[in-house]
Amino acid sequence: MNLDSQWIAGFVDGEGCFHVGVNPHSDVESGYQVLPEFTVVQHERDVQVLHALKAHFGCGVVRRNYGDRMAYRVRSKEHLLKHIIPFFEKHPLKTRKYADFAKFRRIVRMMETGEHLTQAGVEEIRRVARQMNRGADKIKSDLSGNSQE
Amino acid sequence: MNLDSQWIAGFVDGEGCFHVGVNPHSDVESGYQVLPEFTVVQHERDVQVLHALKAHFGCGVVRRNYGDRMAYRVRSKEHLLKHIIPFFEKHPLKTRKYADFAKFRRIVRMMETGEHLTQAGVEEIRRVARQMNRGADKIKSDLSGNSQE
Repeated sequence: MNLDSQWIAGFVDGEGCFHVGVNPHSDVESGYQVLPEFTVVQHERDVQVLHALKAHFGCGVVRRNYGDRMAYRVRSKEHLLKHIIPFFEKHPLKTRKYADFAKFRRIVRMMETGEHLTQAGVEEIRRVARQMNRGADKIKSDLSGNSQE
Repeated sequence: MNLDSQWIAGFVDGEGCFHVGVNPHSDVESGYQVLPEFTVVQHERDVQVLHALKAHFGCGVVRRNYGDRMAYRVRSKEHLLKHIIPFFEKHPLKTRKYADFAKFRRIVRMMETGEHLTQAGVEEIRRVARQMNRGADKIKSDLSGNSQE
């Protein structure tokens, strides 16, 4: 199955998720591990679409998510920087998910320069990550308060 | 907001719904009213995408669905036949939603020729409509049992 780039953008606008986990971790100097992740979850009947996404991006894995749900997932910082982020810069999302993508990109780029290993960097990442994947009321207040982003 | 046709196909693969309601109705000779409906539901923060879909297709309405959800909806048989069905014939869905679309198209075309007004026609429509928008197990059994569709 070949996927058109605009089809992918539309499908990810509906079904994709840009998420950054920030978890306490005693082995890391900053005290936190930063785990960015791009995922698309589908019912197992549509697993072929997830494999087509993997083939298109040339990275990531297709794994069972939970129950009858499968997930296409990219966690590697290098793959996110080389494949995923440039794709969505070239083919912008149309829904408010673009705001999540912008925050996601900002965090992954901070990781690229090693800022996530510093106390100040990880605090900034935690602040940005908290603003992702939230409801409309929160987004409205973010937009009014953070128009510089 | 201008929408690319492939973006729309991808977005509808994720978020769209082709549904046919078949409701008992005493005023209709066949005993049932057949109500086909194409909908895309989004959180109200993305209502501008629904308006862009409406502008692209040149038909339908954007209304509140429930709570903070808005819906783009096309119910007119004429608009479905003229705008919605030809679009998804030209830009095929990639997920198993194409099977719902194929059943939806079949029913709307039966309505075009008036078959939904006959007892035999409405029985056939009820049978097809029952196979729509269901889980994977049901779809698997449909596929093995109804390969002529």
